[in-house]
Amino acid sequence: MYILIINAGSSSLKYQLFNMPAPEPLCTGLIERIGTDHSLIRHTVPSRQGNPVFEQNEPIASHARGFEKLVALLSDSRFGVIRHPDEIVAIGHRVVHGGEGFTQATLITPEVKEKIRSYFPLAPLHTINFTCIEIAEMTFPKAQQVAVFDTAFHQTMPEYAFRYAIPEALYRQEGIRVYGFHGTSHKYVSEKAAAWLRKPEAKLISIHLGNGCSITAIQNGRSLDTSMGFSPLAGLVMGTRSGDIDPAVVFHLMANGYSPDEVYTLLNKQSGMAGLTGFSDMRDIKKLRDEGNPAAELASELYAYRVKKYIGAFAAVLNGLDAVLFTGGVGENDSDMRARICRNLDFLGIHLDPDKNKTSGSGLREINPAQAGVKILVVPTNEELEIARQSFALLETD
Amino acid sequence: MYILIINAGSSSLKYQLFNMPAPEPLCTGLIERIGTDHSLIRHTVPSRQGNPVFEQNEPIASHARGFEKLVALLSDSRFGVIRHPDEIVAIGHRVVHGGEGFTQATLITPEVKEKIRSYFPLAPLHTINFTCIEIAEMTFPKAQQVAVFDTAFHQTMPEYAFRYAIPEALYRQEGIRVYGFHGTSHKYVSEKAAAWLRKPEAKLISIHLGNGCSITAIQNGRSLDTSMGFSPLAGLVMGTRSGDIDPAVVFHLMANGYSPDEVYTLLNKQSGMAGLTGFSDMRDIKKLRDEGNPAAELASELYAYRVKKYIGAFAAVLNGLDAVLFTGGVGENDSDMRARICRNLDFLGIHLDPDKNKTSGSGLREINPAQAGVKILVVPTNEELEIARQSFALLETD
Repeated sequence: MYILIINAGSSSLKYQLFNMPAPEPLCTGLIERIGTDHSLIRHTVPSRQGNPVFEQNEPIASHARGFEKLVALLSDSRFGVIRHPDEIVAIGHRVVHGGEGFTQATLITPEVKEKIRSYFPLAPLHTINFTCIEIAEMTFPKAQQVAVFDTAFHQTMPEYAFRYAIPEALYRQEGIRVYGFHGTSHKYVSEKAAAWLRKPEAKLISIHLGNGCSITAIQNGRSLDTSMGFSPLAGLVMGTRSGDIDPAVVFHLMANGYSPDEVYTLLNKQSGMAGLTGFSDMRDIKKLRDEGNPAAELASELYAYRVKKYIGAFAAVLNGLDAVLFTGGVGENDSDMRARICRNLDFLGIHLDPDKNKTSGSGLREINPAQAGVKILVVPTNEELEIARQSFALLETD
Repeated sequence: MYILIINAGSSSLKYQLFNMPAPEPLCTGLIERIGTDHSLIRHTVPSRQGNPVFEQNEPIASHARGFEKLVALLSDSRFGVIRHPDEIVAIGHRVVHGGEGFTQATLITPEVKEKIRSYFPLAPLHTINFTCIEIAEMTFPKAQQVAVFDTAFHQTMPEYAFRYAIPEALYRQEGIRVYGFHGTSHKYVSEKAAAWLRKPEAKLISIHLGNGCSITAIQNGRSLDTSMGFSPLAGLVMGTRSGDIDPAVVFHLMANGYSPDEVYTLLNKQSGMAGLTGFSDMRDIKKLRDEGNPAAELASELYAYRVKKYIGAFAAVLNGLDAVLFTGGVGENDSDMRARICRNLDFLGIHLDPDKNKTSGSGLREINPAQAGVKILVVPTNEELEIARQSFALLETD
């Protein structure tokens, strides 16, 4: 069953085509800088001999134009993998915000669209997901559309964990609460880990460190708490986001002449590792700290320290710990950062094996000493596959 | 040696007179609602037979007028304890903000005043401390003036703990960092506990739960991290303050028509337990939850849950734990709240003895089972005595 996965950002469009239940994508693609004169499209076909790649710079004015490009590439005789778009049975969409209304993958109907639209005020920058659902409905009129929400996995959080200590009306009437994000990734890696541990009730801390970063406490396959909050700004230090900060800083900056928009941009786009070092990509920062750059060293310690504190907080939430999971670009590849995070946590049963930690690999791997009480696992995430699986499962049972 | 302690708020003035090194105050007083027509002055004299109390409602227009009242009362033949104000050798002032410049109690000189003034932008609501220093200089021209800062104890925090992940210039030029508050209380109770444990290097978590709430990780008598941040708004849930919240909530409210001032007031004055239950005093909330009020029950769970997460985070910071200390009005008196906080933390070695927890007492007391690895201590705080001691020590060595 051909299922196309769509992951849209404000100026980007990522896609993967699966022939489910096979876990390897037939092709994957990325369109960047949509709406500019120098958009870039990159389409790779791992399922064809020689792994051909199509790459081109050309102006792509909108996500709708992007869809036209991807349809053409999917059925292109040189790079394509299908003969006709109608062969695609379902489109699985990553949707950032599912509010309190969506706790799992959902077949898109007019009512569902209405409900997704009702959450626009909670995530005004993510209406593009909705736009792409509508484009996909027109582009693939025969396909089923499925929404998979970043927030859904965290809907199991207890109320004392998801509520803020603000007037109740702001929750009831305006929906201000912790939602949490990266749910698809945390669900994927925690299920992998629980299966590997052969312990469905495992107490897990899942640490997703990518450009965005979040950490989740999971027990019995359910999210109990997570570091992102009402928005993806809260929690860990990220590439350009501050993570947790005293909200009084916002008022202090406004009192000193910053506009609300300037502070918003400052905290979301100019903070985090970028604010501390000038670089948002951990690979650049790693290079700097290897060269002894003090700003990069401090920023890396601060980044690790925040993760460490959340590990402690979530070990308290879980009242125990079976495994700590590292995933995302940084979590999967930066052994030095993993070592900084795990240092001096033996009180919690966390011990890293330095040699295992340095060994790279592609699948799930254990990086603690054999006898350690708490497992430390590197679990490569695959949000697109998870969306494909959830879409497939939904259509199978439908 | 007569030392008068002054603790001024925006519309209040608290004072205690000590004859150091005796730890019992000769008299204590509180002037409330300064600047209104119904100010209240209450002056008690525990050192005189029958513990006389003077109480009066009368308009007190300013802190300067309040000082006149207190001078008159100190030497009043019925309620007084000294013959002449000149007998007072030193005035110890609680000063909220000492920036990065003050790491301990400091004798006030013109240079010190200049430096305190330079921190006004960091705590614009606390200039009253400075005003009272100047009033005291005029009122007690022969006395030495000492400043004891709420922030000083936390100046030992490592940089990766006190910095925010925002552009470095905001730290270097504007001083935006974690300062932490309640330092005098955390220092006092942690020293008491370390002495009681006979372990100066103890790993302690000090939990101050009053109208304001904060929690501090302490090792070797040094603060390593604390829950309040740039301001006293961050961290735990408090009487009227939200504690930690995704800063994106601030922008969301402003986008929905709130002014910056309204959001500031909302988070500082209308949130916390007041926002969740309508009451800011935990005694009222306890009554409600005993009656089965669901909002009070949820708010209490949320309050306890936040403390619990910080206990876990700080146990990770300390990589171990010798004792958890409860202090402040709620921490010292609300056994039900202590039980909620300590529940299901046995993974960290935290076990409460329910009977010992319910027994009340006036001094330091242990409320864990005898064999417990981690001690749980109730340690009554005494910020005024701590200020008196630090002032006395300073004058002795001067």
